[in-house]
Amino acid sequence: MFGALDHVGIAVDDLDAAIELYGTAFGMPVVHREVVTEQGVEAVLLDVGESHVELLSPLGPDTPVGKFIAKKGQGLHHTAYRCEDVEAALARCREQGLRLIDEQPRTGIRGSRVAFLHPASTGGVLVELVEPAGGH
Amino acid sequence: MFGALDHVGIAVDDLDAAIELYGTAFGMPVVHREVVTEQGVEAVLLDVGESHVELLSPLGPDTPVGKFIAKKGQGLHHTAYRCEDVEAALARCREQGLRLIDEQPRTGIRGSRVAFLHPASTGGVLVELVEPAGGH
Repeated sequence: MFGALDHVGIAVDDLDAAIELYGTAFGMPVVHREVVTEQGVEAVLLDVGESHVELLSPLGPDTPVGKFIAKKGQGLHHTAYRCEDVEAALARCREQGLRLIDEQPRTGIRGSRVAFLHPASTGGVLVELVEPAGGH
Repeated sequence: MFGALDHVGIAVDDLDAAIELYGTAFGMPVVHREVVTEQGVEAVLLDVGESHVELLSPLGPDTPVGKFIAKKGQGLHHTAYRCEDVEAALARCREQGLRLIDEQPRTGIRGSRVAFLHPASTGGVLVELVEPAGGH
């Protein structure tokens, strides 16, 4: 169902410090930066092999990532798996009895189509399905 | 420095349930299973693209993963990046001022050579450097 581990999403307090760590110390190229207002984050993508690190900086304390950091501190937030057809992947997850956060895919970063599964049915891990836009 | 996002490590309460989720519902092939006594876990690797999901089931409550689950619940535990030369990667991390858990690489799962960085200097994320054994 999945072609790749598309990215790990990491909640960060200080986006510049995180870019310094992943971009400079680890040497991963920054390939995209976007404010995703509807998700309440500024996001930065860095390349590593066929995958990405996705840094997520909350736009405010009342956003989902802001609340995550207040509760758990900064750190690993979600994993995302790449699929060719996010609707088919989501349908399969529904058939398998998994609890969905998104009943229908929505637009994610860089024009992708994404859907999230609820951690209650995925062993405490927030899981994202990603169908990248053409070219990514 | 890194050629791939080698794996995400996931702490699980129930290894069979987690294999059912990742192996059956998500369709990832199980490629390895190993009791790593010195790390206090039974670990299972599943393939996804060039990466793996690594399921980590604690051998007891007093192990690092057992304590992690007691404190935070099951879920994302660490990220691991693949390198050709773990000693060189570790030396670069030291030069960059990052705090190391392992001053020298040690043997990891499936004959790999690994070293961990301390979350205190990596934004709350436990980071592993992995030099796979030949053939993986």
